[in-house]
Amino acid sequence: MTESLDNLRNQIDALDQQLQDLLNERATLAHKVAEVKIATDPNPVFYRPEREAQVLRRVKERNQGPLDGETMARFFREIMSACLALEQRMKVAFLGPEGTFTQQAALKHFGHAVESVPLGAIDEVFREVEAGAAHYGVVPVENSTEGVVNHTLDTFMSSELKICGEVELRIHHHLLAGKHTQRDKVTRVYSHQQTLAQCRQWLDAHMPGVERIAVSSNAEAARRLKDEWNAMAIAGEMAEELYGLEAVQRNIEDRPDNTTRFLIIGRQDTPASGKDKTSLMISGKNRPGLLFEVLAPFRDEGINLTRLESRPSRTANWSYVFFVDCEGHKEDANLQSVLDKLEAAGNTIKLLGSYPKAVL
Amino acid sequence: MTESLDNLRNQIDALDQQLQDLLNERATLAHKVAEVKIATDPNPVFYRPEREAQVLRRVKERNQGPLDGETMARFFREIMSACLALEQRMKVAFLGPEGTFTQQAALKHFGHAVESVPLGAIDEVFREVEAGAAHYGVVPVENSTEGVVNHTLDTFMSSELKICGEVELRIHHHLLAGKHTQRDKVTRVYSHQQTLAQCRQWLDAHMPGVERIAVSSNAEAARRLKDEWNAMAIAGEMAEELYGLEAVQRNIEDRPDNTTRFLIIGRQDTPASGKDKTSLMISGKNRPGLLFEVLAPFRDEGINLTRLESRPSRTANWSYVFFVDCEGHKEDANLQSVLDKLEAAGNTIKLLGSYPKAVL
Repeated sequence: MTESLDNLRNQIDALDQQLQDLLNERATLAHKVAEVKIATDPNPVFYRPEREAQVLRRVKERNQGPLDGETMARFFREIMSACLALEQRMKVAFLGPEGTFTQQAALKHFGHAVESVPLGAIDEVFREVEAGAAHYGVVPVENSTEGVVNHTLDTFMSSELKICGEVELRIHHHLLAGKHTQRDKVTRVYSHQQTLAQCRQWLDAHMPGVERIAVSSNAEAARRLKDEWNAMAIAGEMAEELYGLEAVQRNIEDRPDNTTRFLIIGRQDTPASGKDKTSLMISGKNRPGLLFEVLAPFRDEGINLTRLESRPSRTANWSYVFFVDCEGHKEDANLQSVLDKLEAAGNTIKLLGSYPKAVL
Repeated sequence: MTESLDNLRNQIDALDQQLQDLLNERATLAHKVAEVKIATDPNPVFYRPEREAQVLRRVKERNQGPLDGETMARFFREIMSACLALEQRMKVAFLGPEGTFTQQAALKHFGHAVESVPLGAIDEVFREVEAGAAHYGVVPVENSTEGVVNHTLDTFMSSELKICGEVELRIHHHLLAGKHTQRDKVTRVYSHQQTLAQCRQWLDAHMPGVERIAVSSNAEAARRLKDEWNAMAIAGEMAEELYGLEAVQRNIEDRPDNTTRFLIIGRQDTPASGKDKTSLMISGKNRPGLLFEVLAPFRDEGINLTRLESRPSRTANWSYVFFVDCEGHKEDANLQSVLDKLEAAGNTIKLLGSYPKAVL
């Protein structure tokens, strides 16, 4: 049996050697790609979101295990990140501080071989990318536990930046206890209102007699356990770790597909990857039937809307703005036809970008 | 040229397929290793620090580039981490909070496929591992910028845990400015005393007329820039990011090999990896020549001491304690002979562990 262990380890060693050779070979090929770009383009773009999305999709699709597809895609994200860093040290600005979900999203999308720079506000992230001080920016756009981030949408109204990617983080809620919590005497549970709503069924079934108290954020709920022995909190892993709490029950959210979404912003247009989304702003004079008018062309062309958000315009000449996310790339004929129809009907359209659907 | 780009990308795609197959094959082999362990050992140990150190060393030694050896070793750390996670979800306790150097050390050593648990104090980390609630713990032991962590050494006096690894983090110091800093009117620079000392030559050469003011920590120095327009701070990347500062000049430390050291603690003994260190506590009655007596056997056997720290004993029967780190493994004949000699001379010896020298 010991010999068999040695034998297996020898096989692993031989395999590691092959792996290492392939990794270096890949970096060499990536370098050749960069050389071709430099030779043919005065402003070569090394980071290609559509190409990376294609690679990651293929990795997940063809994966046979035992490593799961997500772990495998994470490896390839890091491999591409390291290969890219040989050509260009990328700087990515994000809505800080350190340790936020937005930073997590930035690293998930770009890998660890980038320099990530936390900034204090969403418009600072935009400014940093506009000024060229950062190559890309990462901003939250839909945060199911801490509210919709309208500020990001508003900032797009006055920015020329393009969306060149999206990131989704799966968010789990855990029932947490503190060090002093007397678990058999719990009378109240704290969390953000939206989180409480997302765990309603579980709470109904398992803690029917316990009072639910909404506080300003999940982190605030976690913080309170320090001083209260008869309470628990519902919050995510980061709050659990930050406040040294213990999970009594993990993943108590009623819908297991609870995610938070972030956008990657940059200065470049992104070619089609095959599975893309397009975000646009449509503005028109507020009149009866406006919403129907705006939506009809999408339906006529069979284009799936993934999100619709209406916002009051901040400028005098626009009276209403719709933010629309739909499937497809702006170069697709049917989407092009929708845009033509909307413009012909007197609406103003601002394309925020076409970009690959989130892979990881 | 475009065709050549397509051609290169096809080569990369083919190579990625091979890479992926190899990664899954590696996980399958690792699983077979686990099966052999389970079949032959009632308490199988899946994590083998000495084996991982050997793999990482070989990866670095044989690396041909273009990816550098450290990047490559990081990949293999993550690959081993993911393979191990298929067998056993490892729980690693560390001195928190989130975002500290100690957490960075934990992830550097164990990869990202472990659950890392922040605890509030060094003895809590010890207790968690002693109780079996965590598989391993990570504690700081020499922190060049924030002082020596004597508390860790003291805790070893009353613990049966073994050191099974060490981690070194390279620490850089940057000259930082805040948003309001008027860079041409700077009259003072803040930092921790030890950091100021470590950047003395650079400050003498580049900022001779500027007052150096020592504060309690580098983070505190960074924090002060919020309110002062005529000051800069010297601190590391984490403080820079946390407080949204800008680096005026990076890596201004006089010695480029400035590192901070951490220990991995666990319940198991670690076999020799080929390049090991041993940590021990030697206690004896305080008498003239005690230090010389303790050191002589090491010199006689040609064993290199990498660190020596003397501490007053906390128990009545020990009057003095030396913490010694030396090269070699406790099973090595020459180290064994040193231990015999020291015991024969009436000293009490406590072996804290033999473990692989830091690789990454």
